[in-house]
Amino acid sequence: MPKCVLILGAGRSSSSLIRHLLDHSVREDFVVRIGDLDPELAERKAGGHPSASTFALDAGNPEARRAEIASADLVISMLPAFLHPQVARDAIATRTTLITPSYLSPEIAAMDDEAREAGIAIVNELGLDPGIDHLSAMQVIDELKAQGHTLHSFESYTGGLVAPESDDNPWHYKFTWNPRNVVLAGQGGSATFRKNGLNRVLPPHRLFKEVTQVDVPGVGRFEGYANRDSLAYERIYGLEGIDTLVRGTLRGDGFCGGWDALFALGMNRDDAQLSLPPGTTWRAFTAGFAGGVRGDADADAVRSAVAKTTGAGERSLDLLEWLGLFGDEPLEVLQGSPCEILQHRLESKWALGANDLDMIVMWHRFRYRTADGEARVKTASLMYIGEDDTHTAMSLTVGLPLALAARLWMRSDWSGTGVVLPTYADLYGPLLEGLAAEGIEFQEQDDPE
Amino acid sequence: MPKCVLILGAGRSSSSLIRHLLDHSVREDFVVRIGDLDPELAERKAGGHPSASTFALDAGNPEARRAEIASADLVISMLPAFLHPQVARDAIATRTTLITPSYLSPEIAAMDDEAREAGIAIVNELGLDPGIDHLSAMQVIDELKAQGHTLHSFESYTGGLVAPESDDNPWHYKFTWNPRNVVLAGQGGSATFRKNGLNRVLPPHRLFKEVTQVDVPGVGRFEGYANRDSLAYERIYGLEGIDTLVRGTLRGDGFCGGWDALFALGMNRDDAQLSLPPGTTWRAFTAGFAGGVRGDADADAVRSAVAKTTGAGERSLDLLEWLGLFGDEPLEVLQGSPCEILQHRLESKWALGANDLDMIVMWHRFRYRTADGEARVKTASLMYIGEDDTHTAMSLTVGLPLALAARLWMRSDWSGTGVVLPTYADLYGPLLEGLAAEGIEFQEQDDPE
Repeated sequence: MPKCVLILGAGRSSSSLIRHLLDHSVREDFVVRIGDLDPELAERKAGGHPSASTFALDAGNPEARRAEIASADLVISMLPAFLHPQVARDAIATRTTLITPSYLSPEIAAMDDEAREAGIAIVNELGLDPGIDHLSAMQVIDELKAQGHTLHSFESYTGGLVAPESDDNPWHYKFTWNPRNVVLAGQGGSATFRKNGLNRVLPPHRLFKEVTQVDVPGVGRFEGYANRDSLAYERIYGLEGIDTLVRGTLRGDGFCGGWDALFALGMNRDDAQLSLPPGTTWRAFTAGFAGGVRGDADADAVRSAVAKTTGAGERSLDLLEWLGLFGDEPLEVLQGSPCEILQHRLESKWALGANDLDMIVMWHRFRYRTADGEARVKTASLMYIGEDDTHTAMSLTVGLPLALAARLWMRSDWSGTGVVLPTYADLYGPLLEGLAAEGIEFQEQDDPE
Repeated sequence: MPKCVLILGAGRSSSSLIRHLLDHSVREDFVVRIGDLDPELAERKAGGHPSASTFALDAGNPEARRAEIASADLVISMLPAFLHPQVARDAIATRTTLITPSYLSPEIAAMDDEAREAGIAIVNELGLDPGIDHLSAMQVIDELKAQGHTLHSFESYTGGLVAPESDDNPWHYKFTWNPRNVVLAGQGGSATFRKNGLNRVLPPHRLFKEVTQVDVPGVGRFEGYANRDSLAYERIYGLEGIDTLVRGTLRGDGFCGGWDALFALGMNRDDAQLSLPPGTTWRAFTAGFAGGVRGDADADAVRSAVAKTTGAGERSLDLLEWLGLFGDEPLEVLQGSPCEILQHRLESKWALGANDLDMIVMWHRFRYRTADGEARVKTASLMYIGEDDTHTAMSLTVGLPLALAARLWMRSDWSGTGVVLPTYADLYGPLLEGLAAEGIEFQEQDDPE
């Protein structure tokens, strides 16, 4: 009987995962069972493939979900991260190996012993970021160590961007995923990292002020800003005592200055409810964040007030102007949080067109000293453009690591147990090979510093 | 049979409420029943008074609480605000009038019809702030309207501070209530208000940059910063269309500049977990927020880095220096959020001594035009100093409005029904009279502008 891979969740980011598995199902003799809250969505993704079957996931019926997991050989969960502790408990109870792209939570980390006893693996953080970043960084880190070099600085940035051929606005940005998450970016928490031996903390309102310039050979110039808890990677990547350790997000050249101005104004805040009179213009709305001007001030006065309040330079102010924030168009939305009102405007200005393609850029920089004291810098960078608006670069780079790991497991070419991150050669080796075969390949450069 | 006032919660802020009610219980023929999670605390507050009885509140037993409410004539709840919807439902079910110092929640606001049908009142926001601010502001607003004047600006600030005789540090601040709440001040949400006709939004990181200088005659100079949703008071106070409407918090002269520097650094953030090596100095910790220096930089270099990052002036930098943030003392706490680590230091520097007294300052400014076009400005200010470390100014100003309203209701001198704020003359009139008799009295000043 063929093995069965169960996929929980058939949303946007599952498209390329499902296609890849179905493409290999006949030859490698497995079937794919796809469940979603919306059974029609699951059917559409199955596309009538003979190896595919679908079912309706019922959020209110965890027993039914557990029964599906019990009858599968392997489960890949694309469900929201907060559900993964429950899914992991099902996986342990039914002795079914589980793979997810979600960040490893403390709750799942605590299940390591149970997973081992059940003889299964719970593989976490196996998408793009986290995911491909782990694979590619650890390969270089292990190589440098094996060669006897001393790594003293590791920086890593990833961005979901718009492809150069579809990049036609001065922010060099379009929404390639959930706009609300993009508008709330950076507000989730302070960033911690280490720079030149100093443990740093950046509160959200300063994230976009400390920017690293990133030049990706053959692709272009980008900007990286720190996010989340980079210091946690000291232990995860085995970099104890390293001088510089930063992970973050990539944006197009100039983006961070513009976004910092919006951040300084507070126009991305979700913690105030506004109810504005009909006819309120974007200029008056902007003035309300800047202060120091009257509501009927002209565009130049509001632009100056924003410059004074935020410290933004002309280039950043031009980005705000391009969004129409100094103009006299009326607000589209009068009720809601600043974030919601701004998001509505951004959704029209940063809309991804039907023929637009997205792009993933990942960039690592490793600074190291050779055994004979030479200072060198190595970069590894990935640029990957989506196929179309279904098989986006995001869907492909999130889905393919999961799909490749699933095939590896089904071929018994990998058989780890316990709670796992893909930071070891037995996983990153074959996965990076498989990704390269799909065109997801890093370019390396290694120079004296 | 004497009436029974039930008091739920016997914590710090209940001390003066309980004393006042017991002091008047014999003469006005009522008894006071006091419940707390800690029955010994309730007993201590009762102090063996013949009119008092106590009981243990059981958080896990809402039936027992409802039974207590059913057998009382009036309930004053000092429980945490999130419990008040449940208490209000008990009050309606048992037809018992309820008084609390908590902000009116949408959930309780929706109970207006039910409360009327039950023939009871649910009186909210009857402490200091909200509470005495409503009473005193509405009295002036109603007077100005009655005299035919046009109010075009209303500003109101309240602060829980340290009394001048106990004010011996350059921040002019000591912890007179929950230190954690003080350290998190301003992080709860963006402030909204109106200034010169412009609806304003201030994100938390800019609250302490837009400061109003407040001179209280005979008391001194203070600084006010905006907080919460001042625009909501347009409707609550009947000020529709007013040009300027701001409510906020008062701090001592110079405080806001120092706090803004800590805010800009992110040292008050609770959204990152740090784990620092033993021996980390305060100076290195501070450098980690400022950036631009190495961890072993000297005090002057770190001070300069902070100035550059935050824009703080010499006076504010001196305040940080007074806290020891540029010094080489080791951190007391190495694990925790920035907020927790900072709080530990502030608790030793801003400790309220056993003989220190606290002070409440409230200040309203009303700008108006008379019928014949004269521009005038009226201020109403309150300065009130605590008795000791039990009957603090905070405990007295929170407890006395509640106690006075309870006595009013028991004497049948007030008999409103429904969900009520104390913004009407039938409540604010007698309550302000009662407060004045206790020495809580506003000083007014009225001048041409």
